[in-house]
Amino acid sequence: MSSPLSRTRTECEALDRADPLAFARKRFLLPEGVVYLDGNSLGALPATTANCLQDTVRHEWGVGLIRSWNDADWVALPKRIGSTIAALLGAQENEIIATDSTSINIFKILAGALSLASKQDNSRRVILSERDNFPTDLYISQGINATFGNAYELRLVDENIESAFNDRVAVALVTQVDYRTGRMHNMARLNKLAREAGTRVVWDLSHSAGAVPVELNKNGAELAAGCGYKYLNGGPGAPAYLYVASALQADFPTPLSGWFGHAAPFDFKPDYLPAPGIERFQCGTPSVLAMLALGCGLATFADVSMDELRDKSLRLSDLFWQLMDEQCGEFGFACVSPREHAIRGSQLSFAHEHASAIMQALIDRGVIGDFRQPNLLRFGFTPLYLRYTDVCDAVKVIREVMQCGAWKATRFQQRKQVT
Amino acid sequence: MSSPLSRTRTECEALDRADPLAFARKRFLLPEGVVYLDGNSLGALPATTANCLQDTVRHEWGVGLIRSWNDADWVALPKRIGSTIAALLGAQENEIIATDSTSINIFKILAGALSLASKQDNSRRVILSERDNFPTDLYISQGINATFGNAYELRLVDENIESAFNDRVAVALVTQVDYRTGRMHNMARLNKLAREAGTRVVWDLSHSAGAVPVELNKNGAELAAGCGYKYLNGGPGAPAYLYVASALQADFPTPLSGWFGHAAPFDFKPDYLPAPGIERFQCGTPSVLAMLALGCGLATFADVSMDELRDKSLRLSDLFWQLMDEQCGEFGFACVSPREHAIRGSQLSFAHEHASAIMQALIDRGVIGDFRQPNLLRFGFTPLYLRYTDVCDAVKVIREVMQCGAWKATRFQQRKQVT
Repeated sequence: MSSPLSRTRTECEALDRADPLAFARKRFLLPEGVVYLDGNSLGALPATTANCLQDTVRHEWGVGLIRSWNDADWVALPKRIGSTIAALLGAQENEIIATDSTSINIFKILAGALSLASKQDNSRRVILSERDNFPTDLYISQGINATFGNAYELRLVDENIESAFNDRVAVALVTQVDYRTGRMHNMARLNKLAREAGTRVVWDLSHSAGAVPVELNKNGAELAAGCGYKYLNGGPGAPAYLYVASALQADFPTPLSGWFGHAAPFDFKPDYLPAPGIERFQCGTPSVLAMLALGCGLATFADVSMDELRDKSLRLSDLFWQLMDEQCGEFGFACVSPREHAIRGSQLSFAHEHASAIMQALIDRGVIGDFRQPNLLRFGFTPLYLRYTDVCDAVKVIREVMQCGAWKATRFQQRKQVT
Repeated sequence: MSSPLSRTRTECEALDRADPLAFARKRFLLPEGVVYLDGNSLGALPATTANCLQDTVRHEWGVGLIRSWNDADWVALPKRIGSTIAALLGAQENEIIATDSTSINIFKILAGALSLASKQDNSRRVILSERDNFPTDLYISQGINATFGNAYELRLVDENIESAFNDRVAVALVTQVDYRTGRMHNMARLNKLAREAGTRVVWDLSHSAGAVPVELNKNGAELAAGCGYKYLNGGPGAPAYLYVASALQADFPTPLSGWFGHAAPFDFKPDYLPAPGIERFQCGTPSVLAMLALGCGLATFADVSMDELRDKSLRLSDLFWQLMDEQCGEFGFACVSPREHAIRGSQLSFAHEHASAIMQALIDRGVIGDFRQPNLLRFGFTPLYLRYTDVCDAVKVIREVMQCGAWKATRFQQRKQVT
């Protein structure tokens, strides 16, 4: 007599066999005995990264030395990697560059967008965002405002940012997928409403890129930034990227006007002249090693259909939710993520009064998710390397931890990381 | 009958045997048949870097995954590496943090210094620098000025910046060692004169850190930034660092107010509250891989006396200059670097009308220096891995190239890199 869960596992094995993305799991080195549900915080290690870095370090740096900026074309890495990201996000290849961190890139495009807005209509003095936006976006807004002599109001809404657009709002800073709940904005509709209100939108794609079809061009996005270390698998603290729609590039102010954004950086002229294209949004010398690791992360998406990825992502999270309801219904978990597919990213979060201790007990047993203040267990679903059986096994462990009360002996070790 | 050069080489071999820093060369992997005189552009590969990255990637990232932000203490890397740099530069361990790029860090401290200055005396409206300063410093100044509504005049002097301090100058942006000529400022005197004039100085240490004793505290420096990929051997595009004297930290504005500079980044609160110490000058998530490579670079300085390093640096450049005079006197090279030790960094530059073609011919023969506009052959001397015999061999190759006219067949491949 098999239990419901063991019947489910058999079904999951069948789903894994039929999974059109099953081939992609081989592209990662995953530790034994771990179900990794935190790829939305730090993506898993691609199988090629270690050797690629080894080669680059020993040959390009060690032997080629300074010559490799040319001979190995290090100087083109930010553009080349940017164009790979562009393909993933539905942008033109000259609209994205890999550079700096998400925070720095938000600074660049938000400050630039405010400068543009003030030239068009100096009475727009509101930076609009959501109180639940990822904190660094809000911090950067505050720093920009202080830099501009506190000329702006940072207005944070608790609900429905789309209804807050008006003729006072200069720029809206919006994260597509919420880092806690996984709630996803309708990018096309939000862009349209903003455009009608004369407001420019700066998108943070950190929790959507590589997990959902972003389609920047199709959805009318003008400005965006995002991080390389989550679903893009670029490694801890990987370089971030920045998107400026081609129509905006030529006149877009670049407050962080470093030499890598110069039209002719190697002429060593004293006057700044921004590069004509997306290169102008670089600032200092990029880390070659970090760029190469990001390139390996992006290569895990080769020949992956974004539609299949999205389909599997939703199937995985649907399955997780269903099994949580079936197997863990009596333990007091309350899912705070949207049920509706159209507004759900690639993660689920469950509220529980003992969330932190429970998450620590899960991590101790190899089910790695994340705890988020104040009471959320967060689980991310990365279709490239997660299997349906992983989801099944994870819920089994959650049930065991709750049944035996193992979590009561643990205390969550507050982790010092990443969204 | 031995030639003067072969006698010199015997003497150089004796110098190498007596060199108290000879032990440090083993700390690098240097290619066969190369004399590397461009460590002031990209430092050579430390022997430990490749394995360190390999371990970190395979174990800390691959197995530890997100847990390594805590378990491997990734989060403390910028501070830990910063304190190692502080020891090298004569600062307190809590005064330097490794973060971002030199350009970004110059932005942070120059923008902050201008904000502070405007609060004290709003009539100071000049940013003072040298026309020959490294371009990115000037570009960043221009970007800051534009961001502040062009409220400043960027005044560039051609000679003696010390005599240009006056009561209109808010901040002076000074590179300690000139990237072209190697001319070095007297940091103590310049700081004193600036202080007397009520001007704050922002130092760029890119061409001095790791090559000369910088002694930030002793020389009265308040603000500085510099790069990790030259004498510090951190690898191509390594993270840079930033110094803010402890007395200034608490009130120093941070325009790039990202979450890694927050007092409690992992509380995810919506309001920015800067960390009390040097951590506030971080912005986004740091690249762990790039940080670790920088750490390996800095480890090559372990147990190295900065006085012995400086002594060897000057001996190497003196020897090079002497041999150039003796062996290549008839070929029209004119050294543009200072003869006087007190104002010379760790490099020499020679003007020659065919500088670019000559440098290419030298590189083709394994003597790697650099060409700098408009007519300079630049040679850097890195005492940790250069031998006196290397200097002798390099000049021999220069003589051969000039004697046989090999350079006439070459054209310098303008390299797209780094100062």
